[in-house]
Amino acid sequence: MTSEAQPSPAAHAAHAAGSPAGAAEASPWFRSVRAGFAWGDTVLLVTADQSRYLLRLRASAELHTHQGIFPHAMVQATAPGSTLVGLQGHSALVLEPALDDLMRTLRRGSQIIYPKDAAWLVHRLSLRSGSRVIEAGTGSGGLTMALAWAVAPAGRVYSYEVRADAQQIARGNLERVGLLPFVELLEADIERGFQQQGVDALFLDVREPWLYLAQVRAALRAGGHFAALLPTTNQVSNLLEALEAGSFAEIGVEELLLRRYKPVPDRLRPEDTMPAHTGFMVFARALLDEAEAGKWLSKSRQRFLARKEAEARYAAEAEARALAHGDAPQPKYPPMPLP
Amino acid sequence: MTSEAQPSPAAHAAHAAGSPAGAAEASPWFRSVRAGFAWGDTVLLVTADQSRYLLRLRASAELHTHQGIFPHAMVQATAPGSTLVGLQGHSALVLEPALDDLMRTLRRGSQIIYPKDAAWLVHRLSLRSGSRVIEAGTGSGGLTMALAWAVAPAGRVYSYEVRADAQQIARGNLERVGLLPFVELLEADIERGFQQQGVDALFLDVREPWLYLAQVRAALRAGGHFAALLPTTNQVSNLLEALEAGSFAEIGVEELLLRRYKPVPDRLRPEDTMPAHTGFMVFARALLDEAEAGKWLSKSRQRFLARKEAEARYAAEAEARALAHGDAPQPKYPPMPLP
Amino acid sequence: MTSEAQPSPAAHAAHAAGSPAGAAEASPWFRSVRAGFAWGDTVLLVTADQSRYLLRLRASAELHTHQGIFPHAMVQATAPGSTLVGLQGHSALVLEPALDDLMRTLRRGSQIIYPKDAAWLVHRLSLRSGSRVIEAGTGSGGLTMALAWAVAPAGRVYSYEVRADAQQIARGNLERVGLLPFVELLEADIERGFQQQGVDALFLDVREPWLYLAQVRAALRAGGHFAALLPTTNQVSNLLEALEAGSFAEIGVEELLLRRYKPVPDRLRPEDTMPAHTGFMVFARALLDEAEAGKWLSKSRQRFLARKEAEARYAAEAEARALAHGDAPQPKYPPMPLP
Amino acid sequence: MTSEAQPSPAAHAAHAAGSPAGAAEASPWFRSVRAGFAWGDTVLLVTADQSRYLLRLRASAELHTHQGIFPHAMVQATAPGSTLVGLQGHSALVLEPALDDLMRTLRRGSQIIYPKDAAWLVHRLSLRSGSRVIEAGTGSGGLTMALAWAVAPAGRVYSYEVRADAQQIARGNLERVGLLPFVELLEADIERGFQQQGVDALFLDVREPWLYLAQVRAALRAGGHFAALLPTTNQVSNLLEALEAGSFAEIGVEELLLRRYKPVPDRLRPEDTMPAHTGFMVFARALLDEAEAGKWLSKSRQRFLARKEAEARYAAEAEARALAHGDAPQPKYPPMPLP
Repeated sequence: MTSEAQPSPAAHAAHAAGSPAGAAEASPWFRSVRAGFAWGDTVLLVTADQSRYLLRLRASAELHTHQGIFPHAMVQATAPGSTLVGLQGHSALVLEPALDDLMRTLRRGSQIIYPKDAAWLVHRLSLRSGSRVIEAGTGSGGLTMALAWAVAPAGRVYSYEVRADAQQIARGNLERVGLLPFVELLEADIERGFQQQGVDALFLDVREPWLYLAQVRAALRAGGHFAALLPTTNQVSNLLEALEAGSFAEIGVEELLLRRYKPVPDRLRPEDTMPAHTGFMVFARALLDEAEAGKWLSKSRQRFLARKEAEARYAAEAEARALAHGDAPQPKYPPMPLP
Repeated sequence: MTSEAQPSPAAHAAHAAGSPAGAAEASPWFRSVRAGFAWGDTVLLVTADQSRYLLRLRASAELHTHQGIFPHAMVQATAPGSTLVGLQGHSALVLEPALDDLMRTLRRGSQIIYPKDAAWLVHRLSLRSGSRVIEAGTGSGGLTMALAWAVAPAGRVYSYEVRADAQQIARGNLERVGLLPFVELLEADIERGFQQQGVDALFLDVREPWLYLAQVRAALRAGGHFAALLPTTNQVSNLLEALEAGSFAEIGVEELLLRRYKPVPDRLRPEDTMPAHTGFMVFARALLDEAEAGKWLSKSRQRFLARKEAEARYAAEAEARALAHGDAPQPKYPPMPLP
Repeated sequence: MTSEAQPSPAAHAAHAAGSPAGAAEASPWFRSVRAGFAWGDTVLLVTADQSRYLLRLRASAELHTHQGIFPHAMVQATAPGSTLVGLQGHSALVLEPALDDLMRTLRRGSQIIYPKDAAWLVHRLSLRSGSRVIEAGTGSGGLTMALAWAVAPAGRVYSYEVRADAQQIARGNLERVGLLPFVELLEADIERGFQQQGVDALFLDVREPWLYLAQVRAALRAGGHFAALLPTTNQVSNLLEALEAGSFAEIGVEELLLRRYKPVPDRLRPEDTMPAHTGFMVFARALLDEAEAGKWLSKSRQRFLARKEAEARYAAEAEARALAHGDAPQPKYPPMPLP
Repeated sequence: MTSEAQPSPAAHAAHAAGSPAGAAEASPWFRSVRAGFAWGDTVLLVTADQSRYLLRLRASAELHTHQGIFPHAMVQATAPGSTLVGLQGHSALVLEPALDDLMRTLRRGSQIIYPKDAAWLVHRLSLRSGSRVIEAGTGSGGLTMALAWAVAPAGRVYSYEVRADAQQIARGNLERVGLLPFVELLEADIERGFQQQGVDALFLDVREPWLYLAQVRAALRAGGHFAALLPTTNQVSNLLEALEAGSFAEIGVEELLLRRYKPVPDRLRPEDTMPAHTGFMVFARALLDEAEAGKWLSKSRQRFLARKEAEARYAAEAEARALAHGDAPQPKYPPMPLP
């Protein structure tokens, strides 16, 4: 991988299947843009009204905006980080898009995973260049981008989706930003299992993830990282139960809130509104041995189970006493602190 | 990648089959652990009382815990994701540590950056394998780990620190987890400038980052990503002012809140306490041309400046009228909505 | 108002001039302290080390603190809002305690309800001077204070508790701060029903509030306000189901987060930690007619029920088609956005 | 005040100025609605499409909604908590409005204070029936309602506003909900001072509250409660400085976040969006003696001041050493933890 690499159409056509070095060459994202933009690069254009456009440079194309027309040839000739004046005299800032820009400007066929959650999933799944990771479903491909970004160039994302239309949208999104070479899109029902084995991490974004834990264990290496994103607390409870029964350890539930501030130095304050909820993230690690199920629970969970057992015993004793002596029943809400 | 890589290439040659570069070979983190642990690997041990230990496998060493002794040789022979029984009969779960574990168990000489913030910084700085990134100061090396993890094996972290003692702690932490090969530690005062040029991203964790923006611009490529982490709102205001004056665009201020839940399926609830504040993150991108300073401000900021100008004009007119006619002064708190 | 009022009417006759009822006279909280403290008043003392003491002025008593001794006689002679120098030469600030101080310094036999939640409950239950409100259980009496404060002097709090020990602590707490005259403490199991009828509001702080909704309806006037505080999401789901079935409307679930800042003008920042969770508050209003159950559900709930019905119909049709034609089964996770 | 009280137009006309008992009679809010609605009562109507209407019952009036027409006479004849069928056959739920409903449905001429903040202000200002409280400015009268609700019937709100148009809107809002008898609206510039003395609490909702602290002290009794609501951190810093200089104690800064959940038992989850920021609340209590300024600061503040002093001394010593010996300057960002 060198900074002079100019992605050739041929390299893309070959699709670099399985070849990490080839994949890197095939993607404009894995060269430096210091030398300026090349044809095929994805570029971010910010117009003076703060609209943001993502374009893939093609020699004869034009970008039409509310602030006039910007021919791609003009964009290509502009140095990153500088201002371009379009055909109608409007200014636009030209930048190499950040991963965050890629995710925020994709075409959506379904709900996307927010960048804040994607970044945290990448971190908690411990992804790095070279990791092999499965996700299901693909959705619009927003998280797929973040996963591909993290594991490229040596790693690989295997992304499952049952809906052909969603997969088409995702494929277009990934291709547009040059991350498709690091992703294998599979149109398959995960109920029949994953085609990979020994992957480092696996992420489920499906409605009933607890139904697929056997398939997860078959695909994930021992000690591998599992995660799921769920909108409701009921789903979290269901998944937690299945994870306990299914030989997982290090089970955790987390959610992230991102608060933006208005960047006004003399009137600094948070934005007026924010997303209040995007999803609960559930994390776990696969144990090697299924017989270990329920052995490595969290302290909270162990305390709860111990307490439940104590309460059952206490209730049984009280009932026995009552039967023996005709005692009054015990109080309804005892003082023991809840876990 | 470079010559200062410490772990012997031979030790890992067998496992480094798919890895693209020399640095990857040098680090146990860039091979798969499916084949089991090797000497020199960093391992996570979780005892039954939920204590967590990070150890680097050495043939004759022993880990002493509250739950008895675990010789490294026994750990090395245990399959990842399975349970080890120590010399005193206590069980321990053996896992390959996640990046999160590395960051949470490091030795601290100063305040560390929380994983939630580190993951978000990596995302917003758009780091990927191959990126070159500067950070100052190094602190205990917690963020350095996350940066190295993101840019390895082809990229590089340049980490500046003026305190020799802090740097020593950081060096030990990085070495212990095998990430030192991807980091260049520099003991230098950033007031004199950074030694690199054209880096992709630059992060400042210093008390008065606004003093070093000229140095930042000299090191960062045009369009490159800048970030800083600041505990107080006063610092944020100061930095925002300097970024506006210093030819940066895409200025943003954000903070993250992480809420953990007790993973108890039948009594699901958030943890009782949480960190209420770790820091405000300020982001910006460097413009190529210094003359563009103040040209690419956020909508909030532009609205505020426009309004301030209108108010000044309105006040001047009112004063003029009052002088001319002896009018009563205008009300103190006008109804115009604040930006 | 009632006969069990403790503080002598004579003691306060002079100050109770504007107060509308006898109960007000009985409580030192319902006179102004502008004229200085009187015997029997509850006073807040803040020592120089920021410790906070609540004391009820008795002629011969002394307060012993880490900063020395403060005889009540000295406190009584000190003007509110001014500094007292104790026997050992230490300073202390003397203030009339706020409701917040009363709640924060009470003796605890069980978990208390946080002031932030108490204030919101008072607001959402629409309590005002003259309201009649039931709560169960009493606990340490923290919320009882906030309720009494809101409904005094003309209203009344009926507070149920099955544990005699808890009730004793609550009685002491309420007496110490002069709010007992507005509260009727009842040691009774609410399973047998409440002794009041037509109350304006009713609050349940018990583990399984859904078991008592028939009793709630019998005590609450039509249109009256119901609330419960619950630590877990599972309890919230259970209560919501029961409220829907039990002829309640305007059902809502809310939680409050209070974030404190360090009051340092030149280094303004939030406190380091905060309570992450105190409880979910569930609100509802009682319908007059039980036959109206399920008729006044929220939009979210109605949308969900409509969608569930559509899905069931869609699944039935798909199955019918499959049976008729031997079609492939439909996808597992359809693109319809979840409510 | 009795439950049979039927407010007569005459009682309203008299306006009950200054007479707490009379004021109570004049307001329909201070009688029970158990006996059904009376002419002049404020009623909440919720139509089947979940629209909410607040109406004051007048014999010949009609309410026009998207769900048809509801004559007031029909509403008056409907029992609270039951369903009314309108002229076009649509159902509507009839309820006595809660304080929360009053605040949410008022006519707005300016930004309103959110109920969550209003409830917390009422709590932290320790308002109760009988309190005398000043607020400035009145705005649309939303907070005025919450204050009046808390201090009625024996207390009084003095609400200042410089803009006659805003005051007119507020007067209409207060009259419509029957809370005007407990409020004195003053059209005056607070720069010239407040007309009351010895009030129990004072709240400022103005842009530069730090300019009026002398006026605040003149109106507030010693030990009285002060609060302000401010949107930006810069304003908070300014006010904190002025409070320290101006002889206030117990200074605190707080903000509240309210998170609502969708009340769907089998799919429980937070709402999608929420207000991210409404304002920072600053609280303080007035000291009797101005000479005590700065004596009763928070621990955070005291720690900060002590540290600042230590740093200044340390810097002076280092400079002195450097001058004497030609030493190298000290490091830029020392390891001392920030307060």
